[in-house]
Amino acid sequence: MIRFERVAVIGVGLIGGSFALALKAAGACAQVVGVGRGAENLDVARRRGAIDAVAADAAEAARGADLVLVATPVAQYAGVFAAIGPVLGSRAIVTDAGSTKQDVVAAARRALGARISQFVPAHPIAGAEHSGAAAASAELFGGKRVVLTPLAETAAAAADAVEQAWAACGARPHRMTPEAHDAVFAAVSHLPHLLAYALVHDIATRDDAGLLFGYAASGFRDFTRIASSQPEMWRDICVANRVALLAELDRYAAQLAALRPLVERGDGAELERVFGAARAARERWLKGDFEP
Amino acid sequence: MIRFERVAVIGVGLIGGSFALALKAAGACAQVVGVGRGAENLDVARRRGAIDAVAADAAEAARGADLVLVATPVAQYAGVFAAIGPVLGSRAIVTDAGSTKQDVVAAARRALGARISQFVPAHPIAGAEHSGAAAASAELFGGKRVVLTPLAETAAAAADAVEQAWAACGARPHRMTPEAHDAVFAAVSHLPHLLAYALVHDIATRDDAGLLFGYAASGFRDFTRIASSQPEMWRDICVANRVALLAELDRYAAQLAALRPLVERGDGAELERVFGAARAARERWLKGDFEP
Repeated sequence: MIRFERVAVIGVGLIGGSFALALKAAGACAQVVGVGRGAENLDVARRRGAIDAVAADAAEAARGADLVLVATPVAQYAGVFAAIGPVLGSRAIVTDAGSTKQDVVAAARRALGARISQFVPAHPIAGAEHSGAAAASAELFGGKRVVLTPLAETAAAAADAVEQAWAACGARPHRMTPEAHDAVFAAVSHLPHLLAYALVHDIATRDDAGLLFGYAASGFRDFTRIASSQPEMWRDICVANRVALLAELDRYAAQLAALRPLVERGDGAELERVFGAARAARERWLKGDFEP
Repeated sequence: MIRFERVAVIGVGLIGGSFALALKAAGACAQVVGVGRGAENLDVARRRGAIDAVAADAAEAARGADLVLVATPVAQYAGVFAAIGPVLGSRAIVTDAGSTKQDVVAAARRALGARISQFVPAHPIAGAEHSGAAAASAELFGGKRVVLTPLAETAAAAADAVEQAWAACGARPHRMTPEAHDAVFAAVSHLPHLLAYALVHDIATRDDAGLLFGYAASGFRDFTRIASSQPEMWRDICVANRVALLAELDRYAAQLAALRPLVERGDGAELERVFGAARAARERWLKGDFEP
């Protein structure tokens, strides 16, 4: 089992706090130093045993660390990379937990220079209703996928170490390129969020919004659950991954345009075929028939 | 409390079976006669106490009944109305549980003639993962809305009796016109189903469907839950309510077209405003701020 001496968690929220708790539960690290915006939240993280010490800033946390997890909102990554770059030891490894990867890689390249070989971009596919260190759990990543997108310059040993760290947290690591990652998540995550926000926004801005919401039921509730996601986080994701998201949005608009005449002419046979194919694919997915 | 002597349930599935169980639990009926396609399903309904007797067909069930619930798939309504029309007693009341109302009203007018005054169209806003009499429950309608769409010709006493029957089942009755009903449900139910089917179908038909489904997570699961709904039922709903659904589909396409340039130019401020407004509206809805 891999073991780190000093792990720096930059951004001790749900993800950063859960990573720290999971590594500790696995006996994979000796000490965790945390940094974050809220003193109260860091206090919770310390009381819950996620972190052992609080650093004043990212540079102080990263100094002397053999593993650094960047888990702030992605919009803050450029500043974090710029702060930690100069203090990174030659054997330190940096990873992150951002939902987009090409923009993260670009920011890391700009700020880390030659240290880019020590950076292993990652995206754990896990979340929860609540945020902050109070919601963190050593079990958050259990059985969940984590995508690693090592670069051509990434040291093989660094990628292996990050893979083992996530595996120690209970996650199932997979590797792909940053471009493939952003295309896949544009389709199965970023677009659905945009679609859910769009539906709720459209209804909310009508004169009869009260009447419409008054009759919305459980199907509507589940379909729009992701429209209760953090607006700031999804703003950043949509902007960072706008090229891939735009391609998905155009594909989806074309799909709706293809369904429109079926509805217009009441083509029940073809509608049933489309609905049946979708349902069958979803049932296969629920059974776990699709593995990357 | 209202009380019926002989209730006929045409189509003893989840909805019909639950209506019978709920009426009986409330002591609001003496006897339930059921009719349906599957002998096995009717046997389950009888063993579970939902029905007391099985009729050979809809006419036999309706003969002598003081309340008839039509709860088959809507596509069968025309045949059911034609079968029961001639045998309806002058004091019998007919109601239904269809998800669309204008097409049901049109079918009822054609088949029932002057007996249309005895028909009270209804739509209980309740469902469950499973179907059939085995999934029926006396509690299915507890606290749920049921929309009644009485017509100009509907006898006031008939509408009141149906309202009391649904209230006895624990549901909360509301009245609106068939046109308003179909417009409201096109927006908050029929369109979301079409959108969810469209997304899953689009992904399922790609060469890299396995890769994409392989990384789909809980947000995707909830967003697409309604794409596991019965294709036949949703085919019928989309065809029956195509005028209102088409209007909603066009509104939604326009909403996406309005969001597209925000994504394209990376307009984070405006995206955040839209997402924030949607989230705030949804949170108000979850708190129960919207009542029809």
